[in-house]
Amino acid sequence: DTPFTLIAGPCQIQSLDHALETAERISGICEGLGLELIYKSSFDKANRSSIDTPRGVGMDEGLAILDEVRKRYNTPVLTDVHEAGQCAHVAEVCEVLQIPAFLSRQTDLLLAAAETGAAINVKKGQFMAPWDMKNVADKIASTGNERIMLCDRGTSFGYNTLVTDFRGLPIMGETGYPVIFDATHSVQQPGGNGTTSGGQRQFVKTLASAATAIGVAGLFIETHEDPDTAPSDGPNMIPLDQLEALLEGLVAFDGLAKI
Amino acid sequence: DTPFTLIAGPCQIQSLDHALETAERISGICEGLGLELIYKSSFDKANRSSIDTPRGVGMDEGLAILDEVRKRYNTPVLTDVHEAGQCAHVAEVCEVLQIPAFLSRQTDLLLAAAETGAAINVKKGQFMAPWDMKNVADKIASTGNERIMLCDRGTSFGYNTLVTDFRGLPIMGETGYPVIFDATHSVQQPGGNGTTSGGQRQFVKTLASAATAIGVAGLFIETHEDPDTAPSDGPNMIPLDQLEALLEGLVAFDGLAKI
Amino acid sequence: DTPFTLIAGPCQIQSLDHALETAERISGICEGLGLELIYKSSFDKANRSSIDTPRGVGMDEGLAILDEVRKRYNTPVLTDVHEAGQCAHVAEVCEVLQIPAFLSRQTDLLLAAAETGAAINVKKGQFMAPWDMKNVADKIASTGNERIMLCDRGTSFGYNTLVTDFRGLPIMGETGYPVIFDATHSVQQPGGNGTTSGGQRQFVKTLASAATAIGVAGLFIETHEDPDTAPSDGPNMIPLDQLEALLEGLVAFDGLAKI
Amino acid sequence: DTPFTLIAGPCQIQSLDHALETAERISGICEGLGLELIYKSSFDKANRSSIDTPRGVGMDEGLAILDEVRKRYNTPVLTDVHEAGQCAHVAEVCEVLQIPAFLSRQTDLLLAAAETGAAINVKKGQFMAPWDMKNVADKIASTGNERIMLCDRGTSFGYNTLVTDFRGLPIMGETGYPVIFDATHSVQQPGGNGTTSGGQRQFVKTLASAATAIGVAGLFIETHEDPDTAPSDGPNMIPLDQLEALLEGLVAFDGLAKI
Repeated sequence: DTPFTLIAGPCQIQSLDHALETAERISGICEGLGLELIYKSSFDKANRSSIDTPRGVGMDEGLAILDEVRKRYNTPVLTDVHEAGQCAHVAEVCEVLQIPAFLSRQTDLLLAAAETGAAINVKKGQFMAPWDMKNVADKIASTGNERIMLCDRGTSFGYNTLVTDFRGLPIMGETGYPVIFDATHSVQQPGGNGTTSGGQRQFVKTLASAATAIGVAGLFIETHEDPDTAPSDGPNMIPLDQLEALLEGLVAFDGLAKI
Repeated sequence: DTPFTLIAGPCQIQSLDHALETAERISGICEGLGLELIYKSSFDKANRSSIDTPRGVGMDEGLAILDEVRKRYNTPVLTDVHEAGQCAHVAEVCEVLQIPAFLSRQTDLLLAAAETGAAINVKKGQFMAPWDMKNVADKIASTGNERIMLCDRGTSFGYNTLVTDFRGLPIMGETGYPVIFDATHSVQQPGGNGTTSGGQRQFVKTLASAATAIGVAGLFIETHEDPDTAPSDGPNMIPLDQLEALLEGLVAFDGLAKI
Repeated sequence: DTPFTLIAGPCQIQSLDHALETAERISGICEGLGLELIYKSSFDKANRSSIDTPRGVGMDEGLAILDEVRKRYNTPVLTDVHEAGQCAHVAEVCEVLQIPAFLSRQTDLLLAAAETGAAINVKKGQFMAPWDMKNVADKIASTGNERIMLCDRGTSFGYNTLVTDFRGLPIMGETGYPVIFDATHSVQQPGGNGTTSGGQRQFVKTLASAATAIGVAGLFIETHEDPDTAPSDGPNMIPLDQLEALLEGLVAFDGLAKI
Repeated sequence: DTPFTLIAGPCQIQSLDHALETAERISGICEGLGLELIYKSSFDKANRSSIDTPRGVGMDEGLAILDEVRKRYNTPVLTDVHEAGQCAHVAEVCEVLQIPAFLSRQTDLLLAAAETGAAINVKKGQFMAPWDMKNVADKIASTGNERIMLCDRGTSFGYNTLVTDFRGLPIMGETGYPVIFDATHSVQQPGGNGTTSGGQRQFVKTLASAATAIGVAGLFIETHEDPDTAPSDGPNMIPLDQLEALLEGLVAFDGLAKI
């Protein structure tokens, strides 16, 4: 068995320079640890808590930047899509299209993404049971595209709070598709700061360790050189200079989990 | 104070004849009880649990049918939109555009709907706290359109289950916008039947009575002459021949609630 | 049908004078409205959040005070028991023994209370489904005592929060036993203030109206002349001078619910 | 750092022979793996779902059996207490008194257990947040007894379901007291089988691996040579012949977690 795949990058695409710098550092770390990297960053935050928070650089500029990242660092790139009409264009650049959790039951979006032939990473809706993801995977597979990853990013638990039910990882695994654990959004506190979401960065290691010991196919971890100034998901991203130490620990657990 | 507004109709548009028949019966009942009716029906079920369940007649045929309903029965009509690009076209026919719960944080859809100038009925996401709906209303109002209704259809509670927190009605009411209670989807059991959602029709009256006693501006109740054969939401729709008796009881509560 | 029974009083027994004054006022209000009163007050808060908060006057003094209340105002009295050994003694004074929610599955306590022959008001554990209360009632009824009331005081919903699922009232009603809605503890925020529980007094009317419209057999409402200085449950008790107006509205709903 | 402590045994004390046989096998496994064992078994199941299910051998016979186990296998023993009056007697035999989750806020029970001077293992109530356990520990510590273990056995999540929030382990650890993860009751489905609780034995390894990777002080695992015939908690106990392999894997994770 190979080590877990790492899906990582800053939550938002901020600029070409910023993307290249983070890609260089993350790909260097992954190379050192023998991890396969998929670089992740978003061109549009389409469901911000409030109308007053920044949404991103937009699709055209975003894809141009991701294209540069993939060429320079020879790494597959992933970004999220929000409407069916975006999928074909995004798939020209991105090896992986990501379906956001809130949109995980939107049939047209799932089908349009699937029909590009790209790999699809679907986040489990916070309102869904892990066994309900089989129906989601079946929608994608109905197009003939079986390059599917199922990703857990937490489940609604009271108000403004998510909980990770780790039984969900093996349950989603029963579909036969690889299971990814999103350690960044699982510690999000949706709407928890009034007009933005809060987060609990201090539990990323806790939950990522748990997921790795259970034996996931991949981890999703957003990171930023200075999360507290990041335009989104700052409270739950980990500082880039802590990524290597975190991953070293996780690789060790992964080795044991996959014996 | 006036009695509550009733948003009602069969979950899906099935045919012109079916729409006209249900509209005739429901508008007759509302006239008798002094209730203002908004006729509701969907042209597309865009987020079915499974790829194998029917989605509807489509937008063009659906809007033509709704247009006929509004002309014949002189009633405003409401339908739900799923992508920003649909809004302008739908608003040519419908007085009210509805934002589905899963999509209640999709900024582009909210803005496109708002910019038509139509009234907007937004369902609270099952993953949202009632106080988070202020941000949603603010997105709509940022366009200058303040014709907003906030609608509760239940909150995630464990797996495959919703619960209605009735504290949410006055909390959403603090925005100043009218609050609607959706008695049909609040008794849905999402994903509860494997590849379709289940429902608990037997609790529609229970929850609608509670909401009316608290004093809502409107009720949302789907109904069908034979729910068990309906193409969607059958388990939670009430039979059309029980609608009048249900509403009579609710009107009485409403009268007391608004003294 | 008769109007709902009211179980009311201050959370804790504070002194003989305090008990008599509150009993006088509450029994006067109930007489005026045609409601049957059961006077409630606790001699011991046996599960306070913190070791540093006051527990009460104790069993002997508490029972003496309750005995005086029942004689002077000719009203049945209710108090809660915490260990099996207390039941026989408490039943010498109290017409109703109450089983606290946390203890609702303690078999010995249920049996000891039941064997006194007193009526038993069992709170549904916050960790229990409404249908699980049938097993609790069966434990009591196994002694031959069927004078059972089942009382809803909210269900765990995330952390430090309760939600009332109003479907639970008719579900518990299927046992055939009368169902009581506790409007005071349903708006409690357990542990929500650090070393004490918080509460949302502003929602007592909301939830009590909902319950009454659904048609409960009784309401449980704690009240105090100055809740903010009360030794426990202050944040969720309503001021005594608001009780009459609240009950007037509820009696009207009750009349409609039981037509 | 030393490996985790193991609290293990069959849920109920069935007979002296049965206790000795299981103790022999479990203590042999622990010796081989370098784990410190605390033998656990209950003399009374005081909160069974239904009145019709067996409760156990009783306190006197149970303590005699546990005493024999501790002498023959030179292992500390743990059992659970349900009323304050039991504590002193139980502490004559048991090195550890356990407070059941439902009773975790009963002040008298906590104090009586603490005053024996025995070590106390308190289960977190399913209705409590992890940070609320500080108040529970403070009650115990108020007696001067600081031999406290805080144990997570799951949190209410909808009806008849528990979820483990693994953030709770480090949160409870901030008290400074050792944290135990109960892998058996965390996979219980309370009331899930009608008149008994269900369970998901298949997830014991999943959750125990997660907890060990996070770095707990101890694990609580009930086991039985034939769980499907056990008088209680059968669906969530693991077969005794699978215990050694399970523990070997966990010891490896523990070694990494405590580097």
